[in-house]
Amino acid sequence: MGPGTNPSAGRGRPRLEQPRRPGRTAREEILDAAAELFTNHGYASTSTRRIADEVGVRQASLYHHFATKDDILDALLAGTVDAALQLGTELLGSAGPAGGRLHTLVVGDAHQLCTGRWNLGALYLLPELRMDRFEPFRLRRAQLREVYRSLSESVIAECRGPRAAADLPFRLVETVVNSRSDDVEPTPAQPWVIGEGALRILGFVGDFAPLVQATAVRLGVRPPSKPAPLESRP
Amino acid sequence: MGPGTNPSAGRGRPRLEQPRRPGRTAREEILDAAAELFTNHGYASTSTRRIADEVGVRQASLYHHFATKDDILDALLAGTVDAALQLGTELLGSAGPAGGRLHTLVVGDAHQLCTGRWNLGALYLLPELRMDRFEPFRLRRAQLREVYRSLSESVIAECRGPRAAADLPFRLVETVVNSRSDDVEPTPAQPWVIGEGALRILGFVGDFAPLVQATAVRLGVRPPSKPAPLESRP
Repeated sequence: MGPGTNPSAGRGRPRLEQPRRPGRTAREEILDAAAELFTNHGYASTSTRRIADEVGVRQASLYHHFATKDDILDALLAGTVDAALQLGTELLGSAGPAGGRLHTLVVGDAHQLCTGRWNLGALYLLPELRMDRFEPFRLRRAQLREVYRSLSESVIAECRGPRAAADLPFRLVETVVNSRSDDVEPTPAQPWVIGEGALRILGFVGDFAPLVQATAVRLGVRPPSKPAPLESRP
Repeated sequence: MGPGTNPSAGRGRPRLEQPRRPGRTAREEILDAAAELFTNHGYASTSTRRIADEVGVRQASLYHHFATKDDILDALLAGTVDAALQLGTELLGSAGPAGGRLHTLVVGDAHQLCTGRWNLGALYLLPELRMDRFEPFRLRRAQLREVYRSLSESVIAECRGPRAAADLPFRLVETVVNSRSDDVEPTPAQPWVIGEGALRILGFVGDFAPLVQATAVRLGVRPPSKPAPLESRP
């Protein structure tokens, strides 16, 4: 989109050009540009100067929002776990069989990883994340992993499943990241396929239709029109 | 290890110092040093100069083995799929139920990803891999994925499992990479846990003991001393 073609012009912030990216604020546009550059060109290879150029703002304006490149990365990473952690914590404190609650968490989290504009989960493997600067993020992701593990252990107890598999649902959800990195575009059904797989790993062999229904209601989304669990049963 | 302490000294190649890394040849030492630097400091941030320094050879000597840094990365990446692709191709052409064959591939491949000295799978998500230079590697990895998919589809047919899950076993194996990246050291049982999980995802609900036995024989490894599939059944 070139200068002058954006309808949201004239919002009174100093800009070199009109906004050219999704996002209601300069902060969101910076995050969007950084996400694109980090995932497509690499974190180490991307300078804050280049991010500012992409957004069409001065570097000083970028520094007004983020003091360092690490702060931009931190904000992007937080966006990949915060919603899942909130959902998971709520589900952990809810009543009902653990199978249904884990299904909802897996589908919700996988959906978010599938539909994000950039494949931010690919940044989880950056060696830079081992720096102290990112310890708060690492702790939040570890918290999310513990929520998954706790629900998974309850499912295993319900289903007399394999105890050693309790960490696999968390990992299975993140395989969305690898698929996207391989340019395998996730279908709308993918979160549901992963939700079913996560429960099967833990020994669940019951009917998936009620789980799909309850998860769709809880997340406020439509269940897959031809649910994968059903079409696959001859 | 300091100069002069290595027993394999005096093998007649020009070296600044004695070998300080595992590997019978300078080429292997270069690969080991590069693997450490790429996984711990990042690919873009590592120069060939630094790799040569780590090995204790001159840069000219490094260039004798690898013309570019990309060539080093390519050799490292090939090492992560070649054995699995060979095993998978053999298994694809073998007789017998697909369940057992897929189990063997998953356990063998996961074992290799678990026990490699460096977590090279973390490099799969590098944006640099999208360059033309790495197309041959990408094609080989896609071939491996197709072998997994083909065996998985046969298992699904055998078990009347969920057809949409055929890509998940390949992805589940690679979750070893994410675990290691999170400093979760894989236990010796981990490949077996993943082997069981891969089959459960596809709808397999039979006895795992004969599969574990056959896979151990085929791979020439010991089955887990307290097999995860058995200890988990109350």
